[in-house]
Amino acid sequence: MAFVLHPRLMADTAGIADWSLSRVLLMNDKRFPWIVLVPRRPELGEFFDLDEPARGVLTGEIARVGERLKNWTKARGACDRINVGMIGNMVPQLHVHIVARVRGDPAWPGTVWGVGQAVHYGAAELSRIVGELRDIL
Amino acid sequence: MAFVLHPRLMADTAGIADWSLSRVLLMNDKRFPWIVLVPRRPELGEFFDLDEPARGVLTGEIARVGERLKNWTKARGACDRINVGMIGNMVPQLHVHIVARVRGDPAWPGTVWGVGQAVHYGAAELSRIVGELRDIL
Repeated sequence: MAFVLHPRLMADTAGIADWSLSRVLLMNDKRFPWIVLVPRRPELGEFFDLDEPARGVLTGEIARVGERLKNWTKARGACDRINVGMIGNMVPQLHVHIVARVRGDPAWPGTVWGVGQAVHYGAAELSRIVGELRDIL
Repeated sequence: MAFVLHPRLMADTAGIADWSLSRVLLMNDKRFPWIVLVPRRPELGEFFDLDEPARGVLTGEIARVGERLKNWTKARGACDRINVGMIGNMVPQLHVHIVARVRGDPAWPGTVWGVGQAVHYGAAELSRIVGELRDIL
């Protein structure tokens, strides 16, 4: 079986890159700098469904996104914390949220999941941000 | 500097065990089977503050808790998903939430963080659950 991105993730994100394990996606919600990693393997649900070597790769990819997204967000103003979540209550396909948080953002100090409505990027803005993130991640 | 558990985590949890990297804690909230791992090293904030070998150990500990907590929760009725979160907006010390979720629980399908008020275990119940979890994790 081939890897197929869940339609809900496809609808909510824009593609940035394919890394050695994960597809790197930008959540189309300009309230938060928000990356989603999806391991490109079929039939994964829980984190522990990954074999141990792949878990190591995913962990490295999460750390890489976290550190670089934090620096990028700081350069645009401030970044107080990186939030990482593997939830999957609504989208069963294994995916990892990595979200840059700033004191005073629309969900602070709570978590971002299920808070309000996404504010989409304009088309040109989305294309520019995806390009920037492709370079710095 | 020595590792000292953040007072908020100390107040909200009961100790289960010390593993090779992490202190294993039970969140004192019987609405959800909820484990917290805290790497026993001083001055950690973000996940990527850990060096790479320690990240690997933590990843193994997260997977171990996730898989065993899911089986334990299933044996008590049902478990539909394990949620993993590294948030840290309120408690800056690096810690990992691992929560067993069941369709229809008090936060489903949302996340558990910041939802309602914790329902504490009774003293005898807490001691029994900690003992059970010490055995199965």
